Amino acid sequence: MNYRMLIYLLGIITMIEAALMVFPLLVALIYGESVMPFLITMAIMLVLALPIVIFKPKNKRIYAKEGFITAATSWLLLSCFGALPFVFSGAIPNYIDALFETVSGFTTTGASILTEVESLPRGILFWRSFTHWVGGMGVLVFMLAILPTDNGHAMHLLRAEVPGPTKDKIVPKMRQTALILYGIYMALTVVLFIALLCTKMPPYDSIVNAFATAGTGGFSVKNASIGAYQNPAAEWVIALFMLLFGANFNIYFLLLIKRFRDVLKNEELRVYLVLCVLATALITLNTLSYFPTVGETVRTAFFQVSTLISTTGFVTTNYDLWPSFSKTILLLVMVTGSCAGSTAGGLKISRVIIAIKNMFRSVKKTIRPRSVNVVRMDGEAVPDATLHATASYVSIYFALIVIVTLLLSFDGFSIETNLTATLATINNVGPGLATVGPTGNYAAFSPFSKIVLAFSMLIGRLEIMPILILFSPTTWRRG
Amino acid sequence: MNYRMLIYLLGIITMIEAALMVFPLLVALIYGESVMPFLITMAIMLVLALPIVIFKPKNKRIYAKEGFITAATSWLLLSCFGALPFVFSGAIPNYIDALFETVSGFTTTGASILTEVESLPRGILFWRSFTHWVGGMGVLVFMLAILPTDNGHAMHLLRAEVPGPTKDKIVPKMRQTALILYGIYMALTVVLFIALLCTKMPPYDSIVNAFATAGTGGFSVKNASIGAYQNPAAEWVIALFMLLFGANFNIYFLLLIKRFRDVLKNEELRVYLVLCVLATALITLNTLSYFPTVGETVRTAFFQVSTLISTTGFVTTNYDLWPSFSKTILLLVMVTGSCAGSTAGGLKISRVIIAIKNMFRSVKKTIRPRSVNVVRMDGEAVPDATLHATASYVSIYFALIVIVTLLLSFDGFSIETNLTATLATINNVGPGLATVGPTGNYAAFSPFSKIVLAFSMLIGRLEIMPILILFSPTTWRRG
Repeated sequence: MNYRMLIYLLGIITMIEAALMVFPLLVALIYGESVMPFLITMAIMLVLALPIVIFKPKNKRIYAKEGFITAATSWLLLSCFGALPFVFSGAIPNYIDALFETVSGFTTTGASILTEVESLPRGILFWRSFTHWVGGMGVLVFMLAILPTDNGHAMHLLRAEVPGPTKDKIVPKMRQTALILYGIYMALTVVLFIALLCTKMPPYDSIVNAFATAGTGGFSVKNASIGAYQNPAAEWVIALFMLLFGANFNIYFLLLIKRFRDVLKNEELRVYLVLCVLATALITLNTLSYFPTVGETVRTAFFQVSTLISTTGFVTTNYDLWPSFSKTILLLVMVTGSCAGSTAGGLKISRVIIAIKNMFRSVKKTIRPRSVNVVRMDGEAVPDATLHATASYVSIYFALIVIVTLLLSFDGFSIETNLTATLATINNVGPGLATVGPTGNYAAFSPFSKIVLAFSMLIGRLEIMPILILFSPTTWRRG
Repeated sequence: MNYRMLIYLLGIITMIEAALMVFPLLVALIYGESVMPFLITMAIMLVLALPIVIFKPKNKRIYAKEGFITAATSWLLLSCFGALPFVFSGAIPNYIDALFETVSGFTTTGASILTEVESLPRGILFWRSFTHWVGGMGVLVFMLAILPTDNGHAMHLLRAEVPGPTKDKIVPKMRQTALILYGIYMALTVVLFIALLCTKMPPYDSIVNAFATAGTGGFSVKNASIGAYQNPAAEWVIALFMLLFGANFNIYFLLLIKRFRDVLKNEELRVYLVLCVLATALITLNTLSYFPTVGETVRTAFFQVSTLISTTGFVTTNYDLWPSFSKTILLLVMVTGSCAGSTAGGLKISRVIIAIKNMFRSVKKTIRPRSVNVVRMDGEAVPDATLHATASYVSIYFALIVIVTLLLSFDGFSIETNLTATLATINNVGPGLATVGPTGNYAAFSPFSKIVLAFSMLIGRLEIMPILILFSPTTWRRG
């Protein structure tokens, strides 16, 4: 383990976070609020990080293990520092609560312990929503985009942070890949911001909601989330963009370089869109009696499907009151989640496709043991290693859901609350059902449960392995 | 596909079921009840099966595929015929309900649609409990034990019906294996019956409860299940025997031939016992305030752990009123289930052990990609094929839970009801929580849901593959 390099990278990450805090600081200045919470935090970060980053390590070599450890520790560190402005400003006096909120922000979960947000300072709310945007595409990817790094080493960092069962490199150079990803991300966010302005949403709200939509996070600056605006046009825009940010960013790159044929060939995208349409249709039929017009039913159904499949967690209605069938479908799309290589969480559609195809292969193999069955994805054979890794991933994922639900049960809430809180955090969604439903929040959990849930969010965002590796004894054995 | 042989085997199975119905018929005679429901059913079965079994097929060759198909279809057929006495006697007038009850019986689930059982004829209740005993060890195994069959073909049948990730043959000859299994099963049942008589349980109750315990089924002849007897000694006996029937029957064979060292080496058994002790201890601590004495708390906790880990489903208390933590632990042991090669359901402890070890291997492999990591079980290396099959099994298992829960949600019950009904049926437990909790039952579900739940039970009992293969288009393609 190259500890020197690990610490150096953590120093860089801390410097980046300090730099990113300039934005909420400016917002606080504009609205005449106290900038001290940000200034103090930035000072602490600089004092700690500067002595580390001025000495570059000689041996910059890192491997897969360091990549995962760097991802896990830098996300923990970012959250620990990122929580400070909430505490210093008094917005969230309790540090565990502030940490929960920050982890929820960076992991783009959007689960909140706040019961009332509208009275908080605008700078603080800006920072809260901005963490979604930063966490959405990833901080390591950001670091790779701005710093010159060795290509081989960069791969290990990118691999640990970008979600999905297979990591396609957009271009051979990692730094260029990172730049392209952030370029697309930024461009789409700007388009969304302008679109929201066009729906007559106030500029401040447009920008923070654009952050939360782009990162598929779901923190809102209104207590009633997006429902508070009573703005159907904005709901359509946000629903559409949540879907767009849930698609694999490679798709946008392929569109840019005009490889339309490859876009059409993408199975994950097709299944993703079919799933959205199907879920919206079924829920619309199931909830027709809940709304005055069919149009409103479709809009509300589509918004809720889009927000949960993209694991954003914005809400426009209290779907906890919907029939069980609709609620179960919503839980289902929370689990599948969106596409690999997007800012969204969940199992990822491509993983679900591979798992299902693998299931059919198992059936075929049992019937004809000597037959050769190849699982294909986008017309290409999926290597056996990926098939096994996917089956392992899915089984570990469900095992973790069981464990987290068990740990939460100490608090005595209903099993529905505990299970959906687990699903909502491990899939980085935010709201679940019952106590943690669309009108509820996570304030009532014990500090122990909040820490468990924070780890659940990190496990979901970093796709299990980095966090497991961080806590695995094997990692720390034999230097 | 050797259709001729498949139909011949189904004929034999039907003949066996007709023969088994002699026992409830005798009970009905003894208690002076109508024997017509059994006589008519037996007549129907004989008329249909006799013409089939008198002509032995020339080509008796069957392969893995036929083995699975035979298992799936014979279980369906057994249930379809087995439901008739309930309908003919008027005990359960609706055929779908009767089918649900019979599938629940044969699969040793013990989920019931009956709200009141104590008024039913004793012959009918005997048949209901007897299906548990028959289904516990399996009808194909029974057939193999009594009929001379080719060793190679028998293997395919045994493999399709005996649960567990690996099929150890006790002795090389399949027929002897089947005989030894049934011998142990019968001996243990007799010991249990005598033990129950010693606790002063009435003889009729002792025999039907022995059937339900041995098969880890859980149907009771009392509305309040085992709790109705108010007999602590009987509770201890049943709790202990449920655990015994949840252990791999190979263990008993090894004990018989004095290979004690091999018994001690058995990891699954150790984990199974540790899990029971741990779960009992945690629930005891968590529910101390619910009972007047510590002794009663321990007894009740142990009984409920034993009944749910062995997927029997007897109850002595309404655990739906217990704290969430205890309820979650109970759900957890329902999912792990007991040992492979037992009469119990669930994922099976050995599968859970392999899945967890595989998870650690994935972590190690990610850290050191070139290292060789062997997963060991009982000191021996587990082949890669078994590892992958287990990971696939676990992921398919969870996927099916999601699908069944979704299908049940049409009925509009709570998600807790739907999810625990799914867990209770796919794991062959019986009672779940909420509407289907220890004091509830399955009567309120729609006919559609009851059929879905019946398939869930069959999927659980036959360990997924046979039912998937039966409904897979590949099976029926190209003759």
